[in-house]
Amino acid sequence: MILNHENLSQIRVRYADTDQMGYCYYGNYPTFLEVGRVEALRTLGLTYKTMEEQGHLMPVADLKIKYLRPAYYDDLLTILTRILRIEGSRVYFDYVIFNEKKEKIITATTTLVFVSKDTMRPVAPPAYFLNLFHAQ
Amino acid sequence: MILNHENLSQIRVRYADTDQMGYCYYGNYPTFLEVGRVEALRTLGLTYKTMEEQGHLMPVADLKIKYLRPAYYDDLLTILTRILRIEGSRVYFDYVIFNEKKEKIITATTTLVFVSKDTMRPVAPPAYFLNLFHAQ
Amino acid sequence: MILNHENLSQIRVRYADTDQMGYCYYGNYPTFLEVGRVEALRTLGLTYKTMEEQGHLMPVADLKIKYLRPAYYDDLLTILTRILRIEGSRVYFDYVIFNEKKEKIITATTTLVFVSKDTMRPVAPPAYFLNLFHAQ
Amino acid sequence: MILNHENLSQIRVRYADTDQMGYCYYGNYPTFLEVGRVEALRTLGLTYKTMEEQGHLMPVADLKIKYLRPAYYDDLLTILTRILRIEGSRVYFDYVIFNEKKEKIITATTTLVFVSKDTMRPVAPPAYFLNLFHAQ
Repeated sequence: MILNHENLSQIRVRYADTDQMGYCYYGNYPTFLEVGRVEALRTLGLTYKTMEEQGHLMPVADLKIKYLRPAYYDDLLTILTRILRIEGSRVYFDYVIFNEKKEKIITATTTLVFVSKDTMRPVAPPAYFLNLFHAQ
Repeated sequence: MILNHENLSQIRVRYADTDQMGYCYYGNYPTFLEVGRVEALRTLGLTYKTMEEQGHLMPVADLKIKYLRPAYYDDLLTILTRILRIEGSRVYFDYVIFNEKKEKIITATTTLVFVSKDTMRPVAPPAYFLNLFHAQ
Repeated sequence: MILNHENLSQIRVRYADTDQMGYCYYGNYPTFLEVGRVEALRTLGLTYKTMEEQGHLMPVADLKIKYLRPAYYDDLLTILTRILRIEGSRVYFDYVIFNEKKEKIITATTTLVFVSKDTMRPVAPPAYFLNLFHAQ
Repeated sequence: MILNHENLSQIRVRYADTDQMGYCYYGNYPTFLEVGRVEALRTLGLTYKTMEEQGHLMPVADLKIKYLRPAYYDDLLTILTRILRIEGSRVYFDYVIFNEKKEKIITATTTLVFVSKDTMRPVAPPAYFLNLFHAQ
């Protein structure tokens, strides 16, 4: 099922995120991608917090990042998040992060899995999730 | 109740821990203190994991750190942890972190509270915790 | 020298910030305090990034946090930051972090030191810093 | 140039690493891979710290992680790191992380680039790096 929902969100690189190379440490980007996903859902009217309260978790099954250019301290980064499609219990996202000069910092993809909080096993995407996209 | 148990543990400063000042970022030390506490209990024969399985959590109520000297990338730091005493449901720890030249990097104190996992309210220290110190 | 400058800024608790107790991990708050400081300076017209480019660093010498109440995933926290005063090369800040119900999550203080990037030794606060407060 | 050097190292999942799902947060693994790389070089007689002092940085250009199974609090994880090969200024690593039951937690690959600290441009791998593998 094709979703193709796009969202822009922003984060600022904190001093905590820098490393002694003067770059934003490569290991911080997965957290930035989390922000992108969560804000993409929020603009559709769903918080990931609510999803958990409804009994659904979405652990990450797969992550790919290409680091194209460093981000620096205090950079205000823009995260373009796309919710691409659903296949079975899996949801596919991709991302581009830009700096203030609109240069690409990274491109990334993640695969997430709908999991039942009770059984910790994969489940079909819940209706309230699918309805977000039908409603558009 | 005076406990006065001392333990030494070690951690190495990761690249992820550094900041663009070339120092170990000040916000990483609370995690290092967690390592100190957990390893101090482990040498007494108790894992914090077991404590949680027994229904007890130990959130931190109070933290003080004096930063005396920077730690640098790849430094092998030694954490001296002292479990000082128990008062009601509170346990008091202090810490000194040293670098390889035996220079003091930080001194710190924390207060932790025994909390029941069911009620999330403070409770008396469990017998299996107190017994660790009687047994010595 | 008394400064008494107040600023409000906001951060949202990320999934990355949570721990298995379901709380925002205690070791994340120093990073939140950094956000508070940096945004307090920004509203005065100074970025910490510029300060570093001007040759001044501000490492933290002292940190105290009282944890009054847990913060939870997706909470939008408000950081009240006060730049209290300067004594010699030291600047004193205090902080209160509130949740959306305006409950206090933590109170905290930090002491920072003006340091020359060249010598890594304490120096007097630069004129461009002091002028931020005279100008008000 | 084929290198095929293997190394085992260990890390323990800290409370700071957990999230409210009760898993080790997916964004912590890049830091664990850094530990794997650094320890693989150390056993060959080279510290990454020395490399930086010699004027070489190794930023990450590409990261892929497959999350096969969650890691939990206090798990002692084993990181199998392989330095696979060099092509131009690029070094290819792969990794498997196992838990104490020898179950695979993640598999991963990274590509790193030799960069000159002076120019921040890619350079050929330095002789002292290549010699590590010739000497075996």
